[in-house]
Amino acid sequence: MIQDSIDQMKKQVRNWLKEHDERTFRETFLDWHANDQMQVIRELEKQERRLLYEWLTPAEFSDIFQEMDYEDQFFTVKEMNENYAAEMLNEVSADDAAAFFDKIPMEERKESLLKMMDPAEAAKVREILSYPRETAGAIMTKEYLEIFADQTVRDVMTFLRKTGQDVETIYYLYVVNGEGSLVGVVSLRDVIVNNENADIRDIMSTRVVSAEDDLDQEEVARMIKTYDLLAVPVVNKQKDLVGIVTVDDVMDVLEDEMTEDIGEISASKGSTDTNLTAVQAAKKRAPWIVLLMFLGLITANVIGQYEETLEAVVLLSVFIPLIMDSAGNTGTQSLAVVVRSLATGSFERKGISQMLKRELGTGVLMGLICAVVLIITVSIIYDSPMLAGIVAVSIFLTLSVAAFIGAVLPLIINKLHIDPAVASGPFITTLNDIIGLFIYFTIATSFIQHL
Amino acid sequence: MIQDSIDQMKKQVRNWLKEHDERTFRETFLDWHANDQMQVIRELEKQERRLLYEWLTPAEFSDIFQEMDYEDQFFTVKEMNENYAAEMLNEVSADDAAAFFDKIPMEERKESLLKMMDPAEAAKVREILSYPRETAGAIMTKEYLEIFADQTVRDVMTFLRKTGQDVETIYYLYVVNGEGSLVGVVSLRDVIVNNENADIRDIMSTRVVSAEDDLDQEEVARMIKTYDLLAVPVVNKQKDLVGIVTVDDVMDVLEDEMTEDIGEISASKGSTDTNLTAVQAAKKRAPWIVLLMFLGLITANVIGQYEETLEAVVLLSVFIPLIMDSAGNTGTQSLAVVVRSLATGSFERKGISQMLKRELGTGVLMGLICAVVLIITVSIIYDSPMLAGIVAVSIFLTLSVAAFIGAVLPLIINKLHIDPAVASGPFITTLNDIIGLFIYFTIATSFIQHL
Repeated sequence: MIQDSIDQMKKQVRNWLKEHDERTFRETFLDWHANDQMQVIRELEKQERRLLYEWLTPAEFSDIFQEMDYEDQFFTVKEMNENYAAEMLNEVSADDAAAFFDKIPMEERKESLLKMMDPAEAAKVREILSYPRETAGAIMTKEYLEIFADQTVRDVMTFLRKTGQDVETIYYLYVVNGEGSLVGVVSLRDVIVNNENADIRDIMSTRVVSAEDDLDQEEVARMIKTYDLLAVPVVNKQKDLVGIVTVDDVMDVLEDEMTEDIGEISASKGSTDTNLTAVQAAKKRAPWIVLLMFLGLITANVIGQYEETLEAVVLLSVFIPLIMDSAGNTGTQSLAVVVRSLATGSFERKGISQMLKRELGTGVLMGLICAVVLIITVSIIYDSPMLAGIVAVSIFLTLSVAAFIGAVLPLIINKLHIDPAVASGPFITTLNDIIGLFIYFTIATSFIQHL
Repeated sequence: MIQDSIDQMKKQVRNWLKEHDERTFRETFLDWHANDQMQVIRELEKQERRLLYEWLTPAEFSDIFQEMDYEDQFFTVKEMNENYAAEMLNEVSADDAAAFFDKIPMEERKESLLKMMDPAEAAKVREILSYPRETAGAIMTKEYLEIFADQTVRDVMTFLRKTGQDVETIYYLYVVNGEGSLVGVVSLRDVIVNNENADIRDIMSTRVVSAEDDLDQEEVARMIKTYDLLAVPVVNKQKDLVGIVTVDDVMDVLEDEMTEDIGEISASKGSTDTNLTAVQAAKKRAPWIVLLMFLGLITANVIGQYEETLEAVVLLSVFIPLIMDSAGNTGTQSLAVVVRSLATGSFERKGISQMLKRELGTGVLMGLICAVVLIITVSIIYDSPMLAGIVAVSIFLTLSVAAFIGAVLPLIINKLHIDPAVASGPFITTLNDIIGLFIYFTIATSFIQHL
């Protein structure tokens, strides 16, 4: 539905451009949501966009620019003349401008643009760029409202009327003292429902949830989520207010972190970006596959130890995949449970030992179920109750262990303060494969004379 | 850091309770954030909480209640007398109350509570409960502000001062006509920066982004994210405004959907909840494991077809895990790329064919790399260039196919409008196992006389 209307909008814009109807264009286009404007502009021809840079002021274009992904941003800035680009970047909020500059590959281009920008704006961008990536400081913006405790509600409302249009959010007002330290926060709601003569001091909350500038962005996101905030203030070591992180930026952080988690669980970290070429993707993904392949050679070695057993009963090898798949899948389930619990913080309340007991219990139960199913089906298909018994007992032991390993490994890694997703699915799967095959062949070797 | 202060707060509360110091308790405790209050209350003894139900009004407790997860909510409501509980639920916002009632297992208890509540509040809850789960209607709240186009900014400010404290958000004001249809939206920012005499008609935006009441919650979340909104209005088929969904609820939706996606990718759907017992978890997870085990029996059958080949060269079986692991891991990587692209919408712009070409290319490249590595290592370890060649060629073909399958399967399933994560990792892995082993044994059988 939305896609339909974007197509219609594009047709309209194309028409205005063809007829050089700047007036109707401005009347209608500027009424659209910036994200829609962006989607239309992205699909125009270069020549058509050239005209738009004349029809739209740098300030108007800055709203569109902020909706673009980096690729399109870079593309349009290259199309603009540098003056227009610099003026536009002045109007972009500091966090978005910093995110853009952070990705520019050419240092000279970056410097020349920053030098053409308004010095105050450029300084904000440089400040944000100076923080380590993925910290509160690196994702914060500088467009926030500072007020003082001795102002009245009326003072603040007057101030808001003047400056409200230029900041990222006017819904929280941060109260600072003479030294610039954060001492309180007032929501716009509180300002509005209180008497005009009330002092900010009396209506502000002094228990401010704030993030230190070097706090990891994921922690910032969790903070906003826990306290249902629209923004969180960022302070430096001296408790000076240096910026804010807003909820919409945090939603992007959460999405990025999810992509990262899935990438790690599937051993494809950093390569889920669809803009990569096959060569780039292979470069990022091949090391994992090769590493895991070497683990596969270890598994090969485990089987190699039992070559005599296999030579005696070749039929044993047909159950290798079944043992491996079941071990791997059970371990992955436990991994998923633990990774999600760690991410949502829900497991802190339960305690590690209870979680591990639960997973072990689940593994034992699933092992029992699978063993019963296998003893029946394998007896029937392969007409060998002894073989069925070996496979069933192996599956029972393997699943019991696999569920436990899948749960305990990420927890250990979490204790060592490494992201649990690094103990990714494939590694746990391979470890469980090795254990499962070891159990299977040990049992099979013991009972080989009965087969 | 936050945990520390929660512990301190708990000590303080315990002290006040011991000394029956209601006044100091109320002075300090009510100043804390509701989420902190919740975390303290959750860890008190039942007897201690009893006293708190006397010290806190139902309205005050309702803020704490809204921060609790369902388990604690159910627990506290059971502890309260029914009158207190009903009065408290009156004050809880309708979406949170509905979410609570939706999970109450006993129908009678639910009905008796609803009957004791204020009829108007109960009606709101019943309305929300009447929508199918995971739709806009089911997660919306009823506490929003309606204004009219012929009101002035001054009218609205007066209205806000009166009602601002009771609604979920005052930052968007929804403009309706005489019939209750949504005709526009004004942000509080717009209200504040405009002249007091301005008509709402002249400052409102008529291009309102809205969600139909039966829209999937994930779509609602994407809408809020795309347009950087703090809330989205929900309308019924007649375009009447019936509720709003706020950004903080949407963050919970995103987290739930993420849990769901990971659950499906790892075949543990619905079982990542840490509150489940081992038996409950096994019940949910065992069907997947058993189903996948049957697929494992198919793999066994594939190998069974080549029993003669295996009998002739038992050494071939040691590479079964290596082929399987590599096929599975490569397919899972492609799956992760596609699932993430579908979830973030980033792939719509690239087109399917380009994505598939990319994945195929990546698979071929990774296959080449792995083949080269294997030809060297297997030649050295097993001293058989022929065996090394068979394994290397098999890996090359297998990875090329596996990457493609991992990408194309979720896309096909997406075309059929089934959630792509249903084509979960384990299924793609098993399919790739079968294909990989088939390739390996076909090649091995052809060259068996040279081994």
